[in-house]
Amino acid sequence: MKFQILTLFPELFPGSLGHSITGRALNNNLWALDARNIRDYALDKHKTVDDVPFGGGAGMVMKPDVIERALLSFPEHGRRIYMSPRGTPLTQKLVQDLAKEPTLTILCGRYEGVDQRILDSYNFEEISIGDYVLTGGELAAHILMDATVRLLPNVLGNDTTPDEESFSNGLLEYPHYTRPANWTDTSGQDHPVPDILTSGHHGKVAEWRQEQSLALTKAKRPDLLKLHQKS
Amino acid sequence: MKFQILTLFPELFPGSLGHSITGRALNNNLWALDARNIRDYALDKHKTVDDVPFGGGAGMVMKPDVIERALLSFPEHGRRIYMSPRGTPLTQKLVQDLAKEPTLTILCGRYEGVDQRILDSYNFEEISIGDYVLTGGELAAHILMDATVRLLPNVLGNDTTPDEESFSNGLLEYPHYTRPANWTDTSGQDHPVPDILTSGHHGKVAEWRQEQSLALTKAKRPDLLKLHQKS
Repeated sequence: MKFQILTLFPELFPGSLGHSITGRALNNNLWALDARNIRDYALDKHKTVDDVPFGGGAGMVMKPDVIERALLSFPEHGRRIYMSPRGTPLTQKLVQDLAKEPTLTILCGRYEGVDQRILDSYNFEEISIGDYVLTGGELAAHILMDATVRLLPNVLGNDTTPDEESFSNGLLEYPHYTRPANWTDTSGQDHPVPDILTSGHHGKVAEWRQEQSLALTKAKRPDLLKLHQKS
Repeated sequence: MKFQILTLFPELFPGSLGHSITGRALNNNLWALDARNIRDYALDKHKTVDDVPFGGGAGMVMKPDVIERALLSFPEHGRRIYMSPRGTPLTQKLVQDLAKEPTLTILCGRYEGVDQRILDSYNFEEISIGDYVLTGGELAAHILMDATVRLLPNVLGNDTTPDEESFSNGLLEYPHYTRPANWTDTSGQDHPVPDILTSGHHGKVAEWRQEQSLALTKAKRPDLLKLHQKS
């Protein structure tokens, strides 16, 4: 899988994705990266990439002509994605879809964002990682890439288990416990793990975990529970 | 504002946050960072930070005793936050609250996550940046930190305008346009900006933008519109 990135900060790629699991996968060619600097496609001597917004207002808007030249420097695009708080919310289901693509081209905006015409004329999908505002699209791209790369074949070893984690069955994940079975904290208080987990009854453990998942989701995210019941 | 980070990958901090707007702000002491390696607080010679889960299952769980020692190495904590897909969804409103705190202590999990008892006994708030699964909490912490730091005093210059952006009024932001007024793409097709934006009627521009925000939100995120109407 190849990620083609359009950014004013190519030095942010691979960035954090060059470490740990995603970094090893990059070194092992399980995914590839080509980050290009949009500024390299500005034609004037000042390398202008943005200009004031029509209709007034503070901030600057990234120019459509410069972005187009940067975009067309990639011969193939696959799905074209623009990271934006206005986009379709990223979900684990969307991540699973993206992980099947051979190529994704991701446009990262800065300042007030990009000229709407580049998004419309090249059919960019707008994707949002959440309902908050970031300094730029680069960190949002990291999130999309990290979530996608970990689902690619051979990326996760036995470290983690995509089949049994939050959202895999539409529910939040049950709580985890490990040794010591009775943890005494520094104030001297004892914290034993729930008895059921040390009982050795695999069926009852599975049942308890399912109950915990349901109860957690009901308490914290009733919106997910509605989706779970519909499916 | 100070971020205290507990992680197995301290080299990921400041990471991307050391660049651009957040990087300048860090250099200008508008925020501070202290990332500590949880592994430094393991007592055995193998520096063990995780163990198998009680009740069985794949993956490893981070040990409560080691995390506690790492946590208590910070004399003060402020709000204790654990980045987790099971958490309260991060929203711009929550970001605004966090930006008022002098200190945040953020625990980043890896593998299957951390032992539930450390979260319960130290009253960690669980925060989720979205409904997807990442390789670890570090990238999620980057998102929370980036969104928060940009709201701190003197961090944003005139580059961007927190008062007029997505979610500032509960709606998605209107589309932006900049020069050229008529952009001709490489296939020769013309893309003029909407007439209203070059009309010079400030009142009508403001009205059009509000309409666009409402229409976009209605089309893409009716869930936000419900919240907007209630407020």
